[in-house]
Amino acid sequence: MGIVVQKYGGSSVATPERILRVARRVAWYRRQGHDLVVVVSAMGETTDQLLALAAEVSGDARPSPREMDMLLATGEQVSIALLAMALHRLGVPAISLTGPQAGFRTDSTHRNARILEVRPDRVRRELQDGKVVVVAGFQGMTAEGEITTLGRGGSDLTAIALAAALGADACQIFTDVDGVYTADPRIVPTARRLPEISYDELLELAAAGSQVMQLRSVEFAKQHGVEFQVLSSLAPLPEEGGNEEGTRVVAQVNKEFQRPVTGVAVNFRVARITLLGVPDRPGVAARLFRAFAEKKIVIDDIVQSGGPGSTHADISITVARDDLDTSLAICRDVMQEWPGTELVYDVDVAKVSIVGSGIASHYGIGAAMFEALAEKGINIEMITGSEIKISCLVRASRAAEAAQAVHDRFGLEAEHPQLVGTDGATATQSR
Amino acid sequence: MGIVVQKYGGSSVATPERILRVARRVAWYRRQGHDLVVVVSAMGETTDQLLALAAEVSGDARPSPREMDMLLATGEQVSIALLAMALHRLGVPAISLTGPQAGFRTDSTHRNARILEVRPDRVRRELQDGKVVVVAGFQGMTAEGEITTLGRGGSDLTAIALAAALGADACQIFTDVDGVYTADPRIVPTARRLPEISYDELLELAAAGSQVMQLRSVEFAKQHGVEFQVLSSLAPLPEEGGNEEGTRVVAQVNKEFQRPVTGVAVNFRVARITLLGVPDRPGVAARLFRAFAEKKIVIDDIVQSGGPGSTHADISITVARDDLDTSLAICRDVMQEWPGTELVYDVDVAKVSIVGSGIASHYGIGAAMFEALAEKGINIEMITGSEIKISCLVRASRAAEAAQAVHDRFGLEAEHPQLVGTDGATATQSR
Repeated sequence: MGIVVQKYGGSSVATPERILRVARRVAWYRRQGHDLVVVVSAMGETTDQLLALAAEVSGDARPSPREMDMLLATGEQVSIALLAMALHRLGVPAISLTGPQAGFRTDSTHRNARILEVRPDRVRRELQDGKVVVVAGFQGMTAEGEITTLGRGGSDLTAIALAAALGADACQIFTDVDGVYTADPRIVPTARRLPEISYDELLELAAAGSQVMQLRSVEFAKQHGVEFQVLSSLAPLPEEGGNEEGTRVVAQVNKEFQRPVTGVAVNFRVARITLLGVPDRPGVAARLFRAFAEKKIVIDDIVQSGGPGSTHADISITVARDDLDTSLAICRDVMQEWPGTELVYDVDVAKVSIVGSGIASHYGIGAAMFEALAEKGINIEMITGSEIKISCLVRASRAAEAAQAVHDRFGLEAEHPQLVGTDGATATQSR
Repeated sequence: MGIVVQKYGGSSVATPERILRVARRVAWYRRQGHDLVVVVSAMGETTDQLLALAAEVSGDARPSPREMDMLLATGEQVSIALLAMALHRLGVPAISLTGPQAGFRTDSTHRNARILEVRPDRVRRELQDGKVVVVAGFQGMTAEGEITTLGRGGSDLTAIALAAALGADACQIFTDVDGVYTADPRIVPTARRLPEISYDELLELAAAGSQVMQLRSVEFAKQHGVEFQVLSSLAPLPEEGGNEEGTRVVAQVNKEFQRPVTGVAVNFRVARITLLGVPDRPGVAARLFRAFAEKKIVIDDIVQSGGPGSTHADISITVARDDLDTSLAICRDVMQEWPGTELVYDVDVAKVSIVGSGIASHYGIGAAMFEALAEKGINIEMITGSEIKISCLVRASRAAEAAQAVHDRFGLEAEHPQLVGTDGATATQSR
């Protein structure tokens, strides 16, 4: 009993039938005595259709971001009205609210607006009136009354921000997968759903290429301490025997669910750029980073070779593949300051990462990962790491095999995997 | 030079190509030095598609008017964003505004809201900024921030109300016909476009079944003294040789354009109900009218037969065909108070009307109309009239022929028709 904020994505409301199914699920939760706030995205292909119309009308011109927001915000407005009608049909009192009506104030960065404030007075009033409140995800309004949208994954952000503003008892993100897995089941068939994962682990998984949720929604949840649940809207309804389990995303994973390695992620959308023979002196890497920062391109990883006494070094970086052309232009520009430097790049690579809060506190996890790859004869072309992540760059053609090998090595398919040391013995002692 | 408010209907913006064509027309007007405010409706079939979605989701339940407004208002929002983008593509500075942003405050009668106030501050500011302002027709907002729609023909109302609020120099309603005709050209091929028509004549034509514009937009224009022009958006652009003439709708038709009979209208969507043998005493018609008023059904015409000394009379009424079932139910209910009364009805009828400011001031116009029908052997089943209208109910199958005969009789195909008396002589003397 308490306020539950739910979010249903575009595929969950893609057709009138699916909207009715969402309504039935909402009605079930309401029968359990909860006050419900339901955030929805635009129906299935709507956003793509609107983008296509904009492209047709604009021709070679780039559509104004302000007018794109005016256009795109209609998608969610259609969904909320239809879901409210579906709830009415089931006899559930409900009212739809646009983002602005629900109190979302944003800055004026059209198409990627930042939430400045959520004033959910109207939402609270309607809840007190006994209504299910259906809120348009992804949208807000500036102080000047301009319609804005929150960018990719914006509806998740709407739900999490509303949960924070309302002090909700639960926040549930319904999507087309039934939780966060130890790996993408399409790549690693033995992948297992995690009952719990920490914000930090999910952030690292997202950064490493897992597509469950957008980074900034998870960051927002972490910042505001909103624990949430990832569930499938396609799973059976509770009244059909569904279990509504999914994965809880929390600050600290409950001890019983802790595992040294939480998951494996594969990112195929990367490219490697190597600068050969750059001067081996202080400030070279800094110069490169600054040039990338100026163009707002993120360097995923950087590795610099060369050591004491050498006069030249090689620098390898990885970037998102979409950023490759811009990145090469930046490098060519900077290289003019470093005569004799050569540039090579490779798009035929993929990054396989393991993520886990236990990585920093357990011996031998890196070694075990490298060994698992070596046993399969998979060459590691670049290694990077953080407190809770280790990434290996491999040939794209071997990435799936690499992910499966690593997944097997750490026993991630098990409910309670034991960390097995490189010598075959259990090695769960802390540093 | 001055503010021009234009309105483009759904068929004018049905496709990206048509939107670009509207943009080219707007750009032409802007090049003439005008400040432009452009009101648009939802694209072509959009509203019907949204209604279909609502029906699918709602099943047998009647969708809430409030949620219908939330849903339907998105149609115009899509159009305004796309037209603004199209204008940008042509290099024309433009900004789209929703009805609420453009300052439309309404009452809370969802689906048929009344405009309480238009505060076009934002519109003025954007015009001063040198922009074409594209406004969503058909929509407004209550004082409580609820989205409302203005009902059928609402976008015309938006344009006329904006023209009034801005003190615009011109108001142009672009539609899929190029003006108001002496008759529907599909029924009377010799029909001629009128250069001018008065509010009152257009109101009578609309009431008599002409579908150029909704009654209440014309009434609003009359009340607020907004003269406007009806034009075709499908006609050639001015730069392609189009003349942008259409029909001016004015308080008083210029002397040079005055004609005794302005037009002929045919309404096929009528039904006649006759109550035979009702008591011939005071208050009988009033009783019937009150019963209809309680159910909000409009009686188009009423004729009561019977005279001095008779104890019973027959009452015939005409109603819109869509209201027939409800009307019959009302009659059956009332008839219980009048034992012996019989009920008959007929849907195989149509009403042919002539409208003209000259009708009251010229002899013999009625006689000439009845004579024209008699010459064709068309039986007149009911006659009603007003200061500026005479209507005859005829068999539906003869209605087109009747309209043509009357149109011919009054020479409406001519640029300056002369009223020819029943004796064949010109009879334009006043009463």
